[in-house]
This record gives sequence, C-alpha cells and structure tokens, in this order.
Amino acid sequence: MGLDGVVPTVPGEVSRHRERASTDVAVLHAVLDAITVGTLSTVVDGQPWVVPMLFARDADRLLLHGSTGAGALRHVAAGVPAAFSVVAMDALVVAHTTFESSANYRSAVVRGHLQPLADAEQATALDQLAERLLPGRTSEIRGTTAKERAATLVTQLPIEPQSWTVKIRTGPPSPPDEPTDAWTGVVALHTVAGPPEPAGSTPPDRPVPPSVRRLLSEYPTVPDRQT
Amino acid sequence: MGLDGVVPTVPGEVSRHRERASTDVAVLHAVLDAITVGTLSTVVDGQPWVVPMLFARDADRLLLHGSTGAGALRHVAAGVPAAFSVVAMDALVVAHTTFESSANYRSAVVRGHLQPLADAEQATALDQLAERLLPGRTSEIRGTTAKERAATLVTQLPIEPQSWTVKIRTGPPSPPDEPTDAWTGVVALHTVAGPPEPAGSTPPDRPVPPSVRRLLSEYPTVPDRQT
Repeated sequence: MGLDGVVPTVPGEVSRHRERASTDVAVLHAVLDAITVGTLSTVVDGQPWVVPMLFARDADRLLLHGSTGAGALRHVAAGVPAAFSVVAMDALVVAHTTFESSANYRSAVVRGHLQPLADAEQATALDQLAERLLPGRTSEIRGTTAKERAATLVTQLPIEPQSWTVKIRTGPPSPPDEPTDAWTGVVALHTVAGPPEPAGSTPPDRPVPPSVRRLLSEYPTVPDRQT
Repeated sequence: MGLDGVVPTVPGEVSRHRERASTDVAVLHAVLDAITVGTLSTVVDGQPWVVPMLFARDADRLLLHGSTGAGALRHVAAGVPAAFSVVAMDALVVAHTTFESSANYRSAVVRGHLQPLADAEQATALDQLAERLLPGRTSEIRGTTAKERAATLVTQLPIEPQSWTVKIRTGPPSPPDEPTDAWTGVVALHTVAGPPEPAGSTPPDRPVPPSVRRLLSEYPTVPDRQT
C-alpha cells in the first residue's frame, strides 16, 4: 500500500505509482492552502512532541496559532527545530491485490525553526488566521481587542528553499501485471459543508452572513452516488 | 481561536470552550477508528522527523505500514520514541469575534516506542491495514505473496495507559458576552464518497464489488445546503 512516506520517489516509481514528489513551490502552496489543520512536531527533552493546529500560509511562512498561558505553544520555544505537516485523503485506490491498494492523497511537510512574531504583527496574524478559515469574516465583526491580543500567541515557521516536501498521488491503481477477475478503480472522497446552523444566541431574523454564504458556495456539491 | 493544543483543558475551560480532553479509552478508539491517515513523528539526529501514514488500530496497538528499501520507515529504528497523531475537522465555529472563532474537531496523539512485528505477523497485519481502508476486500482478491510480504514493513505502536491524549470540540460558539449584531453558529463539514470509477483495465461488465458498495453505503449522504 502507498502513503508510506514523503521520501521522494525514484523516477521508475513515479509512473508506476502515479505518485509524485514535487519541487515546485506553487504545488506546495496549493496543498497548504487547501488544508485547514495540520500537525506541529518538535522535540522536547529528546522526545517527539506533536500537536494538531490550525494554520494559515502567508506568502513564505506559516502562521501557527496558540494561546498564552496554558496553550500548547508554551512548550515550544522560539528557535527550536520544528516540522509542520498536512495531509488530505482524496480517494481510496482499489487494486487487484492488497499490496497494490493505496490511497490518493496530498501531503506536505515544512521543516524549519519557529520564530516569534513582533507584537505589532500579532493582531494582523490573528486576522489572517481567521480569514483563512472564513474569508471575509473579519469585516463582519469587531476588531480584536488589546486584551484578546495579549491572550494569543501566533508564531511563524518560514518556508525556506529545500526545507519542505510535497507529495501527491492521483489516478487509478497500476494495471494488474497478472490475470485477475478483480474490479479495480478509485473511490473519490470529498469534503462538503452542511447547512449553516445558527447558535441559540443568534436572533432568528439574523441572515446568514456573506462570508458563510460564500464559503458554502465554494465547497463541491455531492456527486451522484448511484452505483 | 481554538484547536491550539492537546493540553488538557482545565475544568472551567471545558464548558466555556465545549472542548473536552477525555480519559476514556473508548473515546480514543472511536477517534482512531474514524480517521484513516495520520502523522508519525519521531526524532532523527535531534531533529523532528514526520511522515503522513495510513494506519489501522488493532486492539491496543496501532499498525503502521511502510515499504522496505526506500520506504519512510527505514529511518525509524525499532524502539525509538514516537508519537502518532490524527485530526479531523468537523465544523467551522463562527463566533462574534475572531478571538472566539474556532473549529469543531477530533484529535488524538498516541505516544510510545515503535516495535517490530514478528515475520509471521507481517502478512496478517497487511491484511488488517487493507481491511481498515476497505472492509471485506481481502476476501475478494488473492492473498499476499511471499515476495510482497518481503517488500513490506509493518511496525506497531502500542497504546499504553497514560500515554495518549484525545480531545474533541463540539457544539456552537460560546454565547457572546457583549452586545452584538453578529450571526454566530456552526458550519458542519462532512466527508462523502463519489461514485466508484473503474480503472481502464477493469472489464466493462465487471460489477462493483460488495466491499466498495458497502463502503459507499456507510458514508453520510450530503445534507441540504439551501441557505
């Protein structure tokens, strides 16, 4: 089965596995921009330390959000080596053997050193994170207060040349290299959004805001599932 | 914004953030069994080393799949400390401020030491991984050959008491603690499966196999998206 690593495939494997490690930073950006949650990994006292985390890409850096005080980032000092990884499952790849069965996916790992953000940048970064999840939202609500900024810690992980890996598998399984009666193919997986559910504290006459309506319009509609 | 850590919440935070770190191993199992791809983190030469990876839970262990030779697991010696993490985004939580906006999610981290599997267990483990992704598939296709087994490396990460964290956020945003006109609420995200797409090498008269039909029946249908 595939999805066993970010080790770049050798040329022979690229066609065989329809799996590609790209060196195009635009591909890295596209994968990072399509996924909203990743995993921050670092080393604390010689042990692996990991935490799932919302993030946003801003040009050549990742913005990572924590809270001060009890938040996860208090364990992570500025300058420590870190790796941020994302992965999305795009399809099941159903082959004629267990060995050839796999998944279509997009994955990326960005390696580097965490850096603090200047105080003046913290509020902007918080808005960037909010806009990443729900574009247009910050213009619908009040700005962040000084007290809220003080309770928030945004750190950054620069995206530096040769310090990242992006890998994508697409397409059907390899053609069988032996006689077989097996059905082989692909089952795509899609993320779809449900209808907006107002919180109980929202007055009943309040319309769904443009940011939410726009987000819903960008999710794919569900394909026909008749088999 | 939430989703900034696996640090257990203090009691006051549980109700405020509707976020819960559970100590119930059944909750851990449910989260691990609902997610098909995670991230393996370890330490290589003092640096964080991470790789996205398919996995399967088998009772009190995780089975992790690599390939011998160039595969990712060659970097990971038996006995090294490791952490395996999974996360699923379940909803956007749209609050009246950026600060309170968040996501509903399920996340888990299992910490321990990687252990080799006995040769005799390798073939069984490969079938378990295949059945995790597509239940019933192994009875539809031929068994794994000795050559395929030799090219595969399955390692295990035991799930030991007090060595894991599971955290779930559900529900709407916290009620606003100030006057606001903002719409607040939740937009749920669902994974749905597309129609099975036969590979070109599959004869046209070959029916979609029971394993694939059953899998499709288990994905949720898409909810009404009228806003």
